[in-house]
Amino acid sequence: MENFKYYNPTKVLFGNDVLDHLCPEITAYGSKALLVIGKTSVKTSGLYARVVSLMNICGISHYTYEGIKANPLYQDADEAVALAKEKQVDMIIAIGGGSVIDTAKAIAMGFYVNHSVWDFYLQKAAKPTQALPLFTILTLAATGTEMNSGTVLQNNETGKKLGYSAPCLFPKVSFLDPSLTLTVPPNQTAYGVSDLISHALEQFFGKGESPLSDLYTAAVIKLAVQYGIQAIENPSNYEAREQIMWLATNALNGTLKAGKNAGDWGVHDYEHTLSVLFDIAHGAGLSILYPAWLKHHQPGINSKLAFLAKNVFDVDDSDQTTAANFFIQKLAQFYTQIGTPTKLSEVDILPTEKNKILDNLKTNKVNGSVYKLTEVDYEAILELMW
Amino acid sequence: MENFKYYNPTKVLFGNDVLDHLCPEITAYGSKALLVIGKTSVKTSGLYARVVSLMNICGISHYTYEGIKANPLYQDADEAVALAKEKQVDMIIAIGGGSVIDTAKAIAMGFYVNHSVWDFYLQKAAKPTQALPLFTILTLAATGTEMNSGTVLQNNETGKKLGYSAPCLFPKVSFLDPSLTLTVPPNQTAYGVSDLISHALEQFFGKGESPLSDLYTAAVIKLAVQYGIQAIENPSNYEAREQIMWLATNALNGTLKAGKNAGDWGVHDYEHTLSVLFDIAHGAGLSILYPAWLKHHQPGINSKLAFLAKNVFDVDDSDQTTAANFFIQKLAQFYTQIGTPTKLSEVDILPTEKNKILDNLKTNKVNGSVYKLTEVDYEAILELMW
Repeated sequence: MENFKYYNPTKVLFGNDVLDHLCPEITAYGSKALLVIGKTSVKTSGLYARVVSLMNICGISHYTYEGIKANPLYQDADEAVALAKEKQVDMIIAIGGGSVIDTAKAIAMGFYVNHSVWDFYLQKAAKPTQALPLFTILTLAATGTEMNSGTVLQNNETGKKLGYSAPCLFPKVSFLDPSLTLTVPPNQTAYGVSDLISHALEQFFGKGESPLSDLYTAAVIKLAVQYGIQAIENPSNYEAREQIMWLATNALNGTLKAGKNAGDWGVHDYEHTLSVLFDIAHGAGLSILYPAWLKHHQPGINSKLAFLAKNVFDVDDSDQTTAANFFIQKLAQFYTQIGTPTKLSEVDILPTEKNKILDNLKTNKVNGSVYKLTEVDYEAILELMW
Repeated sequence: MENFKYYNPTKVLFGNDVLDHLCPEITAYGSKALLVIGKTSVKTSGLYARVVSLMNICGISHYTYEGIKANPLYQDADEAVALAKEKQVDMIIAIGGGSVIDTAKAIAMGFYVNHSVWDFYLQKAAKPTQALPLFTILTLAATGTEMNSGTVLQNNETGKKLGYSAPCLFPKVSFLDPSLTLTVPPNQTAYGVSDLISHALEQFFGKGESPLSDLYTAAVIKLAVQYGIQAIENPSNYEAREQIMWLATNALNGTLKAGKNAGDWGVHDYEHTLSVLFDIAHGAGLSILYPAWLKHHQPGINSKLAFLAKNVFDVDDSDQTTAANFFIQKLAQFYTQIGTPTKLSEVDILPTEKNKILDNLKTNKVNGSVYKLTEVDYEAILELMW
């Protein structure tokens, strides 16, 4: 194993009763909260009204910043920071999926500085030493941001989507109620499953050998396949929803990284180009990219893929190449089965966009930390996605 | 799954360089430390001298309480509390295995009260709301106490060995350097492996269905078997030592409990009777007890044991009873292979002690939370251990 640090102070409350614990968990942190939400769904579902009602019961004043996009923009975070400063709030409560929570993390650190939050992501600003206390109420199982210190935002003007992390960005408490995801539509559900599987794979292909992390990773993917199918077949299946929610959290809370030190993250970096250029869902981009990336790197990763074939799909083939082929095919079939795309044509990105994509990849120096990507790799992987 | 809380704020630094980080991690917490150690090994190994030297380099005054026993006594904790109060220390640094760290946790909470620490364990005292900051330098992979809020102490006068936990008892930082365990003798190594496997099993047989926790549990046991054998065959095998150290931490840091809510802990409770009456190693008592407990409960847990047979030993038998038998036999064989006992006679506890054991079990109302133990069960399990 690589020498490593493991630290995750976020408290997770998980289950269908967790909002009952909202007041006791937050009141010690102050009396004024900024609620951060997306466009419409938390209002139409009644969740926003329920949280507002709880705020009144807790005796907490609240202001709301609404309108965070699915691919969240740094400008929205900057605007929300201005509101948080004007109202001098004591805490942030993010109600939504990964985009809302990632934006809330930006607001939390932006509160204490006098520059755009985007400077953090550009690595132009000093590392933040403090952030407003952040609480999350998760409505979409996917990114894992509810239990880590990472955030991803984008800048449409420059075509950049960038990640950032700092220890002060761990949420204080995350409220994970699977029943809030029962109404997530099938495509969003599938994108979430694709996202969590990709997080597991990025770490699996990271630096270092960690037998426990590898078995944990296979366990996460195995159950994501099993319960992903169940959640698509029957969206109101609570058991499937709770499994997927906890799997998504596990996929990026440090559990799969111990002894690996760093994930590869080349696929994510590549996907950011697709999201930023064509505004496709992150999970859709990932389910298109991963089979292609695996195929491209296959000769060097056959033994790793054979391990996954055995521990995810229970297929033990003495020939590693056969087993590796099987895993890649089976993964792509699964994506198709749950309705997330595996080809660019399915999201209306045509071969005429080739140069635009390659230019963005070059401009952003897209790369993985272990499996290095050259311009030749960019194009070879792209060809496998048409 | 059961609704659950997951919270573990302990920072773990893992690897062969972690003591280099000691000063930067502790200096913010004050200028006076109480070092807590066992009888001799950390002095003969040179580790104690190294830590003392680091204290001088960090500019931290230090006092030492030494002599914690393998089965740690509350009286030692009370004595150390008096020293900590007299010197008005700011933090505690535990250097040793589970006994030393568990005692250090008692001292950390005892510092702020005016009664014996034993009152906490007897549930006579109010739950502690504060404790001295605790840092641990682990020298034995076994109990997992380095990354949880639990502690176990005993009272030889009343024949009680009791566990206790409180959120303020999580260590701030635990320094896990596998190279410090390279000199652990074979029997202690084997008892540690037995202990970690039993922690995994206690949670596996806990309340609630949690597919991810179950696969994680099997992963931990599978690797404990694999690397346990390697560490016994070649004690200076760093890779085996690092795997076992991280497995032991994982076995009781909450990872295997999510969605289960509570472990069974009946075997541990029963084992405490053996330790307190005969001063045998906890891990030795557990490797004797578990095969007997599994056998006793087998008709009701065949499907669970078949799951373990498949995911720990790669044996998939369509007949659950056959698979379950296989798992129990294979587990006992493994214990024998690494040199931890599976029969009471191996630790010189003879059938003439039967009534003494049964009396203690009755007095202490030994029980599991899911698999309830009556006096009939006490005796039936005991008979399987001769």
